[in-house]
Amino acid sequence: MNSFGLKFRFTTFGESHGKAIGCVVDGVPAGLAIDEAFIQSELDRRRPGKNKFTTTRKESDSVEILSGVFEGKSTGTPIAMVIFNKDQKSRDYSNIKDIFRPGHADFTYFYKYGIRDYRGGGRSSARETAARVAAGAVAKLLLKEFGIEVAAGVVEVAGIEAKRLDFEYARISEIFALDPAVEEAQKAAILEAKEAHDSVGGAVLVRAKGVPVGLGEPIYYKLDSKLAEAMMSINAAKAVEIGLGIEVSRLRGSQNNDQMAKEGFLSNNAGGILGGISNGEDVVAKVWFKPTPSIFQKQRSVDIHGNEVEVELKGRHDPFVAARGAVVAEAMMALVLADMLLLNATSKLESLKKIYG
Amino acid sequence: MNSFGLKFRFTTFGESHGKAIGCVVDGVPAGLAIDEAFIQSELDRRRPGKNKFTTTRKESDSVEILSGVFEGKSTGTPIAMVIFNKDQKSRDYSNIKDIFRPGHADFTYFYKYGIRDYRGGGRSSARETAARVAAGAVAKLLLKEFGIEVAAGVVEVAGIEAKRLDFEYARISEIFALDPAVEEAQKAAILEAKEAHDSVGGAVLVRAKGVPVGLGEPIYYKLDSKLAEAMMSINAAKAVEIGLGIEVSRLRGSQNNDQMAKEGFLSNNAGGILGGISNGEDVVAKVWFKPTPSIFQKQRSVDIHGNEVEVELKGRHDPFVAARGAVVAEAMMALVLADMLLLNATSKLESLKKIYG
Amino acid sequence: MNSFGLKFRFTTFGESHGKAIGCVVDGVPAGLAIDEAFIQSELDRRRPGKNKFTTTRKESDSVEILSGVFEGKSTGTPIAMVIFNKDQKSRDYSNIKDIFRPGHADFTYFYKYGIRDYRGGGRSSARETAARVAAGAVAKLLLKEFGIEVAAGVVEVAGIEAKRLDFEYARISEIFALDPAVEEAQKAAILEAKEAHDSVGGAVLVRAKGVPVGLGEPIYYKLDSKLAEAMMSINAAKAVEIGLGIEVSRLRGSQNNDQMAKEGFLSNNAGGILGGISNGEDVVAKVWFKPTPSIFQKQRSVDIHGNEVEVELKGRHDPFVAARGAVVAEAMMALVLADMLLLNATSKLESLKKIYG
Amino acid sequence: MNSFGLKFRFTTFGESHGKAIGCVVDGVPAGLAIDEAFIQSELDRRRPGKNKFTTTRKESDSVEILSGVFEGKSTGTPIAMVIFNKDQKSRDYSNIKDIFRPGHADFTYFYKYGIRDYRGGGRSSARETAARVAAGAVAKLLLKEFGIEVAAGVVEVAGIEAKRLDFEYARISEIFALDPAVEEAQKAAILEAKEAHDSVGGAVLVRAKGVPVGLGEPIYYKLDSKLAEAMMSINAAKAVEIGLGIEVSRLRGSQNNDQMAKEGFLSNNAGGILGGISNGEDVVAKVWFKPTPSIFQKQRSVDIHGNEVEVELKGRHDPFVAARGAVVAEAMMALVLADMLLLNATSKLESLKKIYG
Repeated sequence: MNSFGLKFRFTTFGESHGKAIGCVVDGVPAGLAIDEAFIQSELDRRRPGKNKFTTTRKESDSVEILSGVFEGKSTGTPIAMVIFNKDQKSRDYSNIKDIFRPGHADFTYFYKYGIRDYRGGGRSSARETAARVAAGAVAKLLLKEFGIEVAAGVVEVAGIEAKRLDFEYARISEIFALDPAVEEAQKAAILEAKEAHDSVGGAVLVRAKGVPVGLGEPIYYKLDSKLAEAMMSINAAKAVEIGLGIEVSRLRGSQNNDQMAKEGFLSNNAGGILGGISNGEDVVAKVWFKPTPSIFQKQRSVDIHGNEVEVELKGRHDPFVAARGAVVAEAMMALVLADMLLLNATSKLESLKKIYG
Repeated sequence: MNSFGLKFRFTTFGESHGKAIGCVVDGVPAGLAIDEAFIQSELDRRRPGKNKFTTTRKESDSVEILSGVFEGKSTGTPIAMVIFNKDQKSRDYSNIKDIFRPGHADFTYFYKYGIRDYRGGGRSSARETAARVAAGAVAKLLLKEFGIEVAAGVVEVAGIEAKRLDFEYARISEIFALDPAVEEAQKAAILEAKEAHDSVGGAVLVRAKGVPVGLGEPIYYKLDSKLAEAMMSINAAKAVEIGLGIEVSRLRGSQNNDQMAKEGFLSNNAGGILGGISNGEDVVAKVWFKPTPSIFQKQRSVDIHGNEVEVELKGRHDPFVAARGAVVAEAMMALVLADMLLLNATSKLESLKKIYG
Repeated sequence: MNSFGLKFRFTTFGESHGKAIGCVVDGVPAGLAIDEAFIQSELDRRRPGKNKFTTTRKESDSVEILSGVFEGKSTGTPIAMVIFNKDQKSRDYSNIKDIFRPGHADFTYFYKYGIRDYRGGGRSSARETAARVAAGAVAKLLLKEFGIEVAAGVVEVAGIEAKRLDFEYARISEIFALDPAVEEAQKAAILEAKEAHDSVGGAVLVRAKGVPVGLGEPIYYKLDSKLAEAMMSINAAKAVEIGLGIEVSRLRGSQNNDQMAKEGFLSNNAGGILGGISNGEDVVAKVWFKPTPSIFQKQRSVDIHGNEVEVELKGRHDPFVAARGAVVAEAMMALVLADMLLLNATSKLESLKKIYG
Repeated sequence: MNSFGLKFRFTTFGESHGKAIGCVVDGVPAGLAIDEAFIQSELDRRRPGKNKFTTTRKESDSVEILSGVFEGKSTGTPIAMVIFNKDQKSRDYSNIKDIFRPGHADFTYFYKYGIRDYRGGGRSSARETAARVAAGAVAKLLLKEFGIEVAAGVVEVAGIEAKRLDFEYARISEIFALDPAVEEAQKAAILEAKEAHDSVGGAVLVRAKGVPVGLGEPIYYKLDSKLAEAMMSINAAKAVEIGLGIEVSRLRGSQNNDQMAKEGFLSNNAGGILGGISNGEDVVAKVWFKPTPSIFQKQRSVDIHGNEVEVELKGRHDPFVAARGAVVAEAMMALVLADMLLLNATSKLESLKKIYG
């Protein structure tokens, strides 16, 4: 249950306040150059504590590769990576040891597992996503060999929507904003909520360029359904759209269909996927995040004994979780595409013959 | 790739214009009463050709159970069900033998598999979903034993939105409309598009009542991510929301968090899921469908040789695919919940001890 | 639990006395010629009732392809095949309705599932293996494209061992005997046991020629461990050896190691597998079968209420189950190799580049 | 491909001469006391360098738990364990950098992955099995809660066979010998081979007591087929028997069938498994190991360029690999049984009702 993917498959482990988090990436074809600095740079993008828009938790997020790489190349054996936790500070949580935090998973974890790990989010913490970013970096290295590039950015904050999508800009924006023109307003909304001890939600757009036709394995391993699964598995995600998503539900078929000409599709409402298979256009997904549940206001709750309480959280949290979510969404799309790339390799007898001669 | 689920797992097979479609349902606990009439009645709900809002293809969709049931009860062995196709009429497709239909999967299937099955949607046809409905009916029988009930209905057609949700009414509505007050307007929108040789999109709401706390297996088998996958795998689905979905991205944390009191959660913005695990509230998902791609107007396209063509489809198609999609969405949610019910059975040592004494 | 394989994956269904048995074969690359007559001929090889060495149950075992094939070629979608049961005769079992048959699975099925399907072996019957043979025939068609051929035969009956291995001869032998020189003695042993209302055991040798280097996915999807699993899953199998098997445990390393020269390995004690990966030599496995548990002598047993009884079976059974087991073992090896062939296609970045250019 | 099990599932990583090896154990029910000292003691049993019968490689094999345990109990989240390598000494291998070692996996790894990791066995080294033993220790802790105990020992060395099976004695024997009466002869055979720069093979018997009726998920997740797979996946294993194994192939049905009386089965030829499901008797498997391929004599081989060479290995190797293999076989049986225990929990509707009330 802690693994994802079929052929390019990763497994993550670790809790926010345990010794370490990490992942095991299985199915990486042998001979791929594993650029450790690149993996670290991806982690650095997601790393908390860099600016006032994220939690103040300080984590260096130094990744260590334990296996699967020899002389800089993947060997075909599992690549294990570990990130030791530095700044756990579980004392922050002592005052809510027995109290369920509204909007949090501690309620459901407690009743599912019968265990109360009061030290913080535990396994449900967004800290786990660092392991995904490490795995995703390996996926990106593979995709790059085939000219596939994945990028993501924040498209909406507290209802303030980007009008244009500049993925290059998003890489340098503190909040991964796609549109410099609205970035300041978006930032202001975050800080305003933060000052009010509150939080805001938003949306992330993820796009892959260079995806060949044919990725996706219908009926139950379609590219869009696996992307939906991958995106919805990210902390705080509440909705996923493919291509124009909801918008096309209000169009007529004649308006929505992507017609074709010699030069290719004349539009890309579909987000690059037809029948669960990539059609060669950009693959596009949008992920919607709820406002961070950890707010510093009084809220009604109950404790593990069922008593009503008033709870006021302390601690360190992102006022806008979708920002760092953009890096995670990028990783998840890379991981899905890498898996699909491998799976599709045997779709035709002809392809198989290319390999076995 | 044609299987779904881990412990309660089904596999489907069959194409729209082949001999038969069907499914194999594996992991059904032994001793469950298998009500064949109920399974048939579920298929009848989805069956085409019943009214002017659906395709005129006539299929009796008679299901035959081939295995796994003895004296009316499940035996623990796989339940295979088959539905023979009656009204294939592949002649309908002769005029577009080599032409890709805009918005259709024939383009991607051709390039992925190198095979041109010109007889219709083939495997990508919504006809495949009949097999899901049969499997879903078995899942519903299991869920019923634990007081879990799944219902769905159409919540929006061509931008016309239901104001209230009457799941009982949806069962008798020709278009599975949830709100009788807007049903006529919704129907009119469908017929208007149909007359214009066009089609409309819409949305379906699915809800499960009676779901116990604890279903969902984080991190990569969360209830919400598996629901997202399941819903997005339905033909023409382009977006999935959990609970209030996108709406909460525009709220603050203080507005969105479902606070708790002795009597339970004070709201259900989350749609019954926290951290990927059910919290005991109604599980709610919304699925958005694009307008049916099969329209009867002239469209630009290309053929398999790359020549530009103008295509005008003939044939029989739903002008509003989301209607019958409601029955399928219901089945998919039942299938996900049945799987989660089995998976969660061993989450605690304590549960295991109840079984092995 | 009723599926086998990861990429070339089949699912079987059906019981000995139900309506039908069958399989769904998933992952077959598109464009493979599906020779239905060949599939039927494979089933004919396994078919019961052909001579005095097998059960007298008469089954035509006519296979019907329901999906996945268009104009004689695989389409990349699941290939479903069904075989309707003709000669169930469940009346044979009425006298032992409540009695456990020694050496049979009815005891364990009853306690595991709480269901008593008294009509015969049900799902545990060797009848299920017809579905494997149908799936295995598709695997063989795929392997043939790559010059891989699988053959099997009976190597030992009741302790009477073949001295030489003639796989061609085995195809025409009534008991699939590999050595014509001992066949008569082996047949005599079977008939002698049959006349004594008893049964005998034996062993089957399976061999694949033309297997390329590289098949097998260590550590937990090794070629030898998957072959062991596949062979042990056959009814009545009690031991599996790879290559010379047990014999090499009594040799020294210096005697056992397959040394190498320019022309290749100088011996094949290993049975073509090193470290779980094929080495280009013949892949060899031996499967040992217990004597058929269904004998027609008085035996001590208990009934489902726990009462002691004396049971004397009636009915129709193979006095030597390993004979038809040879055909099944062949199918299982083909199925494992087909899966491994697909899985290995992405072991190297270089292979992937051949496909995606 | 580096994961094993479905519900109780472990993934291993690491190479013999890399930084670390380790495992991630998923699916452990929450609330299980995780006795770290016990896990370490299991590793100590397998640890090399303890006496003259094993390799002189010195490894402390200190295990560190990184996640999944809180206040001494499993939390339901994945348990990651890591063992850092101390004594890699890859210089040992410099003289055979380009030469394939007869009987070794370096040949097949090179051609499968196109990578030459000359530092030693790499991923194919028996060192990987330490990770299995760590995972197996967790499985044993779970099984113990249900009264299930697994034990193993060496039953044969170089043809010298144990006459009786004393599993208690095996725990204190330097070679895990089951029969003290033949232990000295077995040890002498090992040392004699060692002095001749050669190696010997042998067999291990594994037995589980207290296994409830019902474990095993036919048809393709049978207890015996999964045991066969698990055992055959151990380095150097070449054959697996269940119960009396090959011996029963030479018996008649009337001699082999385990008849039943009120007090239970009157014999256990079947090794506790009928139809792939445990029958309540001791589960018994025998694993046969080839002689260690690493011998210190001149052998014919080729190098990676295809040139013929004469190779004489140096380094540190077990002259009798089956000894430590006994500890691994024990771990693998525990892992299979733990998985089966969880899987069987939902075999009956009745069991499910015990959990959900």
